[in-house]
Amino acid sequence: MKLIRAFYKDRAFYGALSTQEVYPLDKELRSHGSIPLKELQLLPLVSPTKIICVGLNYKSHAMELNMEIPDEPVIFLKPPSSIISTGENIVYPKMSKCVHYEGELAVIIGKQGKDISVKDAPDYIFGFSCANDVTARDLQKKDGQWTRAKSFDTFCPLGPWIETDFREMDDLSVKTIVNGEVKQEGRTSDMIVTPYELVSFISSIMTLMPGDVILTGTPPGVGELKPGDEVHVEIEGLGTLINKVVEE
Amino acid sequence: MKLIRAFYKDRAFYGALSTQEVYPLDKELRSHGSIPLKELQLLPLVSPTKIICVGLNYKSHAMELNMEIPDEPVIFLKPPSSIISTGENIVYPKMSKCVHYEGELAVIIGKQGKDISVKDAPDYIFGFSCANDVTARDLQKKDGQWTRAKSFDTFCPLGPWIETDFREMDDLSVKTIVNGEVKQEGRTSDMIVTPYELVSFISSIMTLMPGDVILTGTPPGVGELKPGDEVHVEIEGLGTLINKVVEE
Repeated sequence: MKLIRAFYKDRAFYGALSTQEVYPLDKELRSHGSIPLKELQLLPLVSPTKIICVGLNYKSHAMELNMEIPDEPVIFLKPPSSIISTGENIVYPKMSKCVHYEGELAVIIGKQGKDISVKDAPDYIFGFSCANDVTARDLQKKDGQWTRAKSFDTFCPLGPWIETDFREMDDLSVKTIVNGEVKQEGRTSDMIVTPYELVSFISSIMTLMPGDVILTGTPPGVGELKPGDEVHVEIEGLGTLINKVVEE
Repeated sequence: MKLIRAFYKDRAFYGALSTQEVYPLDKELRSHGSIPLKELQLLPLVSPTKIICVGLNYKSHAMELNMEIPDEPVIFLKPPSSIISTGENIVYPKMSKCVHYEGELAVIIGKQGKDISVKDAPDYIFGFSCANDVTARDLQKKDGQWTRAKSFDTFCPLGPWIETDFREMDDLSVKTIVNGEVKQEGRTSDMIVTPYELVSFISSIMTLMPGDVILTGTPPGVGELKPGDEVHVEIEGLGTLINKVVEE
């Protein structure tokens, strides 16, 4: 099922997307039948208690940066206030002079868990989506710590939907396209740590909660965004996350 | 008012603490009159959408580490899953061989805000409390990024209460005491960036939400905790946050 979250008749609800029609899961709204997608105001897919990201997780991206592959994942957090849905604008903050896109596969957690084994990880995953780990590269370098650079409002586009029917995520194409030009291109088979291994590793540190989001790292080809740009993150089977960049 | 959050008769509620009696703010429970503090199971004071911390914020701590005072605060995040209340145990994770205490003044946000001026900051603060920014020092060094080191479950003791009647926070004593021995001793007057300036700076990056927590940095004297230790964070007028350390 392709799940979206939207606002209709003063009500926030989850709905199942089928081509351009949305079937509300909400009991009250269900009586309306389906609603055309274009009549809906999309909402961020989830309100997580945390967004956990991994620093360097594609072999070819590590090689591109001339960096050694770390023996354990290096994680960081983005605040929930950074999430926007597809169609919403990425706001270029005045504080930065160099904002980058980072297209990524996102894991949405469905069940509370701690110390989850790699084998059990699929049971704790609600679904997958596309994400953009937008980063103020200049502030990332300045601070050393990555938090400020990755925490601005609108710096975590997530969508267009949550795909709950997933089987093999281990060899999907991940692309980032800016103004129609392919900038990042990778395959999840190039990941150093798989999504299941990430769920297991992160849950050995902190309790994962339903709605929590894990960003699984970005393939080679990161680069700059400018106000006016339109950025797409496109993952095989997961649709296209589309956001424009606007000035603050 | 000294606000606590507790569990009583299958109900989570906020209550006002007066010496050893708690007066529930909850309508239903209010009819019971006051409840002795010792009959209550304390709950974490807040369920924040984020916990934002500042890296180096006491002049004498910067000097102790021979580090330059940064021209802007360096921030990082701790996950909400790390919060525990006073009286709960800090769990020493198997993954680390060197866990440190860091006693800190905590700011609790009371109102949603973005781009808050220093002058307006007090309007957005709900209250203050004591916190312990527990840190796996070895993993902090290993990762470079501080997230894993500071994100383990139980690594953010917060309490014992939220003090909502605050006036001057600019020269309070902040102490960390381990097994009765004073280990950290500082005054908020030694802060490089004041709590109001921190609220303003952080809100220039991300929208602050009610219940969000800001940890304002630690004074000199950080050091190790071992299983069996009892650690107190004591701030003038804000009570004493008490937690024991236990093995995983």
